[in-house]
Amino acid sequence: MTVPFLNPDYSEELALRVKKVRAQMPTAHVDAVLVASSTNMFYMSGGIFRGYIYLDSNPDRSPLFLFISPSEAPDDSRCMQIHKPEHIANRLSESGYGSPARLGLEYGDMLCSDIERLKKCFPESEFADASAVFRKARMTKTPYEIRAMERDGIHQAVAYSQVSHCYQEDMTDLELQIEIERVLRREGCLGFLRAAGSRMELNLGSVLNGDNADNPSPYDFAMGGEGIDPSLPVGANGMTMRRGTVVMVDMNGGFNGYQTDMTRCWALGDVPEPAHKAHDCSRAILRELERIGKPGVPISELYKRAVAMAEEAGLAAYFMGHRHKVRFIGHGVGIELNEMPVVMERNNDPLEENMTIALEPKFVIPHVGAVGVENTYQVTPEGLRNLTVFNEELSEL
Amino acid sequence: MTVPFLNPDYSEELALRVKKVRAQMPTAHVDAVLVASSTNMFYMSGGIFRGYIYLDSNPDRSPLFLFISPSEAPDDSRCMQIHKPEHIANRLSESGYGSPARLGLEYGDMLCSDIERLKKCFPESEFADASAVFRKARMTKTPYEIRAMERDGIHQAVAYSQVSHCYQEDMTDLELQIEIERVLRREGCLGFLRAAGSRMELNLGSVLNGDNADNPSPYDFAMGGEGIDPSLPVGANGMTMRRGTVVMVDMNGGFNGYQTDMTRCWALGDVPEPAHKAHDCSRAILRELERIGKPGVPISELYKRAVAMAEEAGLAAYFMGHRHKVRFIGHGVGIELNEMPVVMERNNDPLEENMTIALEPKFVIPHVGAVGVENTYQVTPEGLRNLTVFNEELSEL
Repeated sequence: MTVPFLNPDYSEELALRVKKVRAQMPTAHVDAVLVASSTNMFYMSGGIFRGYIYLDSNPDRSPLFLFISPSEAPDDSRCMQIHKPEHIANRLSESGYGSPARLGLEYGDMLCSDIERLKKCFPESEFADASAVFRKARMTKTPYEIRAMERDGIHQAVAYSQVSHCYQEDMTDLELQIEIERVLRREGCLGFLRAAGSRMELNLGSVLNGDNADNPSPYDFAMGGEGIDPSLPVGANGMTMRRGTVVMVDMNGGFNGYQTDMTRCWALGDVPEPAHKAHDCSRAILRELERIGKPGVPISELYKRAVAMAEEAGLAAYFMGHRHKVRFIGHGVGIELNEMPVVMERNNDPLEENMTIALEPKFVIPHVGAVGVENTYQVTPEGLRNLTVFNEELSEL
Repeated sequence: MTVPFLNPDYSEELALRVKKVRAQMPTAHVDAVLVASSTNMFYMSGGIFRGYIYLDSNPDRSPLFLFISPSEAPDDSRCMQIHKPEHIANRLSESGYGSPARLGLEYGDMLCSDIERLKKCFPESEFADASAVFRKARMTKTPYEIRAMERDGIHQAVAYSQVSHCYQEDMTDLELQIEIERVLRREGCLGFLRAAGSRMELNLGSVLNGDNADNPSPYDFAMGGEGIDPSLPVGANGMTMRRGTVVMVDMNGGFNGYQTDMTRCWALGDVPEPAHKAHDCSRAILRELERIGKPGVPISELYKRAVAMAEEAGLAAYFMGHRHKVRFIGHGVGIELNEMPVVMERNNDPLEENMTIALEPKFVIPHVGAVGVENTYQVTPEGLRNLTVFNEELSEL
């Protein structure tokens, strides 16, 4: 179980990923990469073990899987046991891999102290940041990855179908979140959020009710929330949910190392017309982006089209926040919640087939709450294919 | 709420922490530190905001709190708003703080790419790793911190008192864990694990039954567990819990930015005598360490005494693991789950008053499971004071 991709059943999948990573090496000017982060180790092996994965640019060579106790190297020519990273360079020489002239390390995924230690392990090499190598390789998904995310989307939808059963009158936002967490976990959610960067602390997701949706958080989430403690200022704030408000449910969709990102909203009793109007606008934006979101289209076009539709509807003041606005409407998702690409105005890169992106055109209506829908999509030649199919209406809880 | 320590009520607490951090600066040969990690920002401010905290060694100067949008600087002479870290050095000069000759950055708590960016923001400075400055300052707790951890211990004990109500016949370990997670969350647990380093991925804790306690994990936890997915190989593995085995509950104790670490075990029906014997030995070890654990005692003494008692009881083969053993019996705990000191043989540093350490002398009995008790203690002149008071018997579930 430790390293699934060493199993012959996955040899094509491993070869595909190796090829995608190697294709990015020239742009980072590296002739090898050493994988040490959990995220990229999972990408390159299908599992997490203690150790490293070494991959050079020579297409005739296999990646090398280096295990450190308590992880044990399986009996496989691509694997070896080492005691500590200081031994890697010697083992590479002995194995005929030579010494990399310029080694890529994951500066954007690893602690500085860990990177500094690794640099000392390769006294003959120069170094460069290889985080972008993996981010770009992972940006488009393999069929295997798409299937994993399809399964996530189904599990997440099943869990969301039970949200209305989780609710009881006079609950707090936090009490509702706790019941949803339980439903998600029973559905197989791993209960662990993998995200890139240092600006994404969160528990199992976000349930935002009423004006709490407009509380800015120091993190990089589209909607913030105050949280219940100054050590984690994000999400539900423990207030009792009042009638006439909306509750937005944006909870964890990670069931298998991959994840989908999905938001749905529920109304508590009758809510003011602007909330319905904005919610409908969000859905209309998604329908339009699903249609135009084809390979080759500049990613900025999705952003601009969404902003234009919010403006046309007279809802610009509420779009992507009210007191505090964020300047993106979506993001890549996969192993990490926040992958490439970011769907924002200045991203003129083209959409590519089999990118997976979460689009979340949301509105914050003062004193009512956040409305809108978030789906995770696969980019296909026919447009965006929804992986998180579930009722999108603003139903009553 | 964002920055509690700017409130005059906390001025003494802030001054105390500033003094503790300044006292560690000479050993790192730095004349200032720039705090950017969540952990140390919470330590220095009582909250999390987007921005930085600058502290130099001049005792006449206050720390400087630098806010970046969406976090807003309060109206306070110690605070200023900046647009990006590239502006910090200029603002320091304008404010009369000058330029640090040697600036400490948190190499062990921050991504390498973030550290590299910060280094470029101070073109006139040299740099050094300041992670140890904060780890050592945080190693002994203030009375305020002890009170926070006392509250954690009480909440965690209340949650653990409901474990037996969470259990139903023929449950899997994971199903039990999910019900305990719900109880913890309803008791106020934040649902988020803050830990140091890159080797501590986990959801809300660990419920280990039977032989799963002996499955090594690639992470730095005392007992591993297989997990339910190769992307997170730790903890419960989803097996139905059989009679005649033990289940070990080591779940998250974080309720207020601090945390306690606490393990209790329950027997499913009658379990073999060696399990009871080892469990009693764990309790006897704790009683002995509580007695001898006074300021000035070498930390290695705790480790050696525990190993000796396990050997005297003829249980050495099971102590701290069976198939795979770990070489520590405890660790500091506070804002992070794994703080200084590590209680291991080669740590000859003395215990200090108001260190808070989790001691976890555990045994893995083949085919039965892990037994033993973990408590979090405050070091006092009278010995170790238990912050996680709760029934320690191996009760039937």
